[in-house]
Amino acid sequence: MSSHDDTQDGQGSRSPGARRRFIGRGLGLAGAAASLPFAARAAAPPGAVERPVPADPAKVPGYPLEDESYGARSQFETEVRQRYKTATPLSSWTFTPLQDSLGIVTPSGLFFERSHAGTAVIDPRRHTLFVHGLVARPRKYAMRELKRFPSISRLLFLECSGNGLTEWSKPTMPTVQGTHGLTSTAEWTGVPLSTLLNEVGVRANAKWLLAEGDDAAAMTRSIPIEKAMKDCILAYGQNGEALRPEQGYPLRLLVPGYEGNMNIKWLRRLEISDAPFMTREETSKYTDIRPDGKAVQFSFEMEAKSVITAPSGGTAIEPGFHEITGLAWSGRGTIRRVDVSVDGGSTWREAALQQPVLPICHTRFRIPWQWDGRGTPVLQSRCVDDTGYIQPTLGQIIALRGLNGPIGSVYHLNAIQSWQVASDGKVTNVHHY
Amino acid sequence: MSSHDDTQDGQGSRSPGARRRFIGRGLGLAGAAASLPFAARAAAPPGAVERPVPADPAKVPGYPLEDESYGARSQFETEVRQRYKTATPLSSWTFTPLQDSLGIVTPSGLFFERSHAGTAVIDPRRHTLFVHGLVARPRKYAMRELKRFPSISRLLFLECSGNGLTEWSKPTMPTVQGTHGLTSTAEWTGVPLSTLLNEVGVRANAKWLLAEGDDAAAMTRSIPIEKAMKDCILAYGQNGEALRPEQGYPLRLLVPGYEGNMNIKWLRRLEISDAPFMTREETSKYTDIRPDGKAVQFSFEMEAKSVITAPSGGTAIEPGFHEITGLAWSGRGTIRRVDVSVDGGSTWREAALQQPVLPICHTRFRIPWQWDGRGTPVLQSRCVDDTGYIQPTLGQIIALRGLNGPIGSVYHLNAIQSWQVASDGKVTNVHHY
Repeated sequence: MSSHDDTQDGQGSRSPGARRRFIGRGLGLAGAAASLPFAARAAAPPGAVERPVPADPAKVPGYPLEDESYGARSQFETEVRQRYKTATPLSSWTFTPLQDSLGIVTPSGLFFERSHAGTAVIDPRRHTLFVHGLVARPRKYAMRELKRFPSISRLLFLECSGNGLTEWSKPTMPTVQGTHGLTSTAEWTGVPLSTLLNEVGVRANAKWLLAEGDDAAAMTRSIPIEKAMKDCILAYGQNGEALRPEQGYPLRLLVPGYEGNMNIKWLRRLEISDAPFMTREETSKYTDIRPDGKAVQFSFEMEAKSVITAPSGGTAIEPGFHEITGLAWSGRGTIRRVDVSVDGGSTWREAALQQPVLPICHTRFRIPWQWDGRGTPVLQSRCVDDTGYIQPTLGQIIALRGLNGPIGSVYHLNAIQSWQVASDGKVTNVHHY
Repeated sequence: MSSHDDTQDGQGSRSPGARRRFIGRGLGLAGAAASLPFAARAAAPPGAVERPVPADPAKVPGYPLEDESYGARSQFETEVRQRYKTATPLSSWTFTPLQDSLGIVTPSGLFFERSHAGTAVIDPRRHTLFVHGLVARPRKYAMRELKRFPSISRLLFLECSGNGLTEWSKPTMPTVQGTHGLTSTAEWTGVPLSTLLNEVGVRANAKWLLAEGDDAAAMTRSIPIEKAMKDCILAYGQNGEALRPEQGYPLRLLVPGYEGNMNIKWLRRLEISDAPFMTREETSKYTDIRPDGKAVQFSFEMEAKSVITAPSGGTAIEPGFHEITGLAWSGRGTIRRVDVSVDGGSTWREAALQQPVLPICHTRFRIPWQWDGRGTPVLQSRCVDDTGYIQPTLGQIIALRGLNGPIGSVYHLNAIQSWQVASDGKVTNVHHY
């Protein structure tokens, strides 16, 4: 058997034992032992095809181009979304591995998920969007009709308002995937919602709009009509192709800068009204409880937030040069500035922002850092958006909102995150006031 | 068996017959017939997992979130890269399905491929980049060392200079995937090449740089040192994750705006010199032959180009409203304007450009069009970049470059593309002077 045999590719059913033997033989040609770390892996990581690795890639042909293909990632790339261990996997979250993030686009395969009744499977040829209520011409639209309207594309982040909910009272999640992984960015394409509302003729007394999903949760949220007319999008595209199933295929609502839950997935109905609908998801859930026990009505916009993604919790660093990098974003507009501290907030230096800096979009920041190997540096980032809003410390936000409930508050935690570097270089999630 | 049974998902080995029975039973619960169009399909399209489709997605739970996942696209999305039928699939192209493109980002699974010896399989833990020649400190870098350098991210298009090579003498490819599908855009992340060159200390007499790939073709190209210092990138990231294997995993060179072939994949060596290396790929291939039979030395930059992606060849349209949309790009800078004609170039209207418009990046343009169903409109787009360069007609470029060889010239065809709408609405690829 040659060290490169394409007929063996993609046979996921091969037993771990057979796999080890195959790798051993393949690498044996170059004298490598069968004890390489990957030899013991039973199967390719999700999204990859396991292929034999030649000792010298320049000495044997690669694998041929397929007649029809939709490419997969390398077998050596193993990052995955990780699910929060909720009681049921039907109402759960999966977190984006931000520790490995590059640039501002989130790969669609790693875009965070939040579903209340699993991922709906919808045939786009049968799916419709019904628009009714305070409109002159109620109407049901097929997907192919929606796609005939003028379209728009926009890079936007989406963040679950529960992002960081475990972190109020004490540092809980060891990695940035756990503390901040419920935010992701994609280039979305769809129809401006204002176009459709103008088509159906919204009545003068319309003030709110109900958006309803076609999943088993029948997720529903109320959206102010001004926001709907301003910049909401009926999105069918994500990163240059159709929406991914877990992002609401074939149609979702995008409410730029508002909490993720309002960006209704599997969108099937819009009802125009003169008042908010006070659904479960904006009354008993997804509200912020004040120290006096009353809920804020409403808290839709995601405030400015940032986090250092590398170095971050769960990694270990050596003394020497490091590029500190991370992401900043604001539901209210554009990131204007990110400062980074390596001494727990005593001193700050301004980071470089990767261009283009776009409104309501992840912004990548970077700053060089030389660690002399001494002390236990505490790394923090603090962003400012173009409204002048400054990302608060944890102490500031707790003073404002209190700690209601067993884990403190739940939603809209946007405090400065602290990563502490131990003397041995290990980085951990800490609370640093 | 319930209509939603995740234990059946992803079993690609199920026979077509078994598949039909399963779909039939699953939909049977909702009273649907087994004659739905998708029932006869044997397996999910590439990149998708086939799942049963409930009659009413709101009445049954969706499928659960996985503990660890890397998401796949919907089973209803079937677009693929298509391979040009070269003699061997080891030296071939696959084309991006631009007819379905949305926005400016190309999904990594659909990013075009051009390889001369297949796709190399490289273990990133063993891969190195050797930098030598006219430098003070020659050195070999491991991938983990390269990733320690300050990084940069940039949205850039890549285009094979052979894009459109079949279209010189007569319209050949029926679709825009065939005529223009060798261009794609991604957000790339890596190390500025200038950083590395400063590290090794380029000597004063250095004028050129050889980049060499670690594939069996040992692809080599010469790059002017001024370009290398200006904006080249040693890229390890693509659309927020690692480079895809067919894009040069774990490391490729990006030479912004220069022909795709120079953006060496599986990069293993850089040699600094005082003269170009005159490799096969810049002498006998990838050169433009003038009418007098001599080759232009060199033609690196990709000139401004645009194409209407919808409506485009191989589709059919109905009378009524249409959004004409497409892509424009220039290797020399930023697209300033795109005009669209529906009468074969007699009259033009200016299209809207999707913001942000970025240099050396696909730019999405859109313009509304009402087709009255009469005549046989010829749709064209024409772009202008910020150097003032105007995309030429086919007649203009043939007058300049001639038609050498059996199919005319080969490389760098950037002429205005024409799509003709027949009276029955069918759209075809035509040459229209």
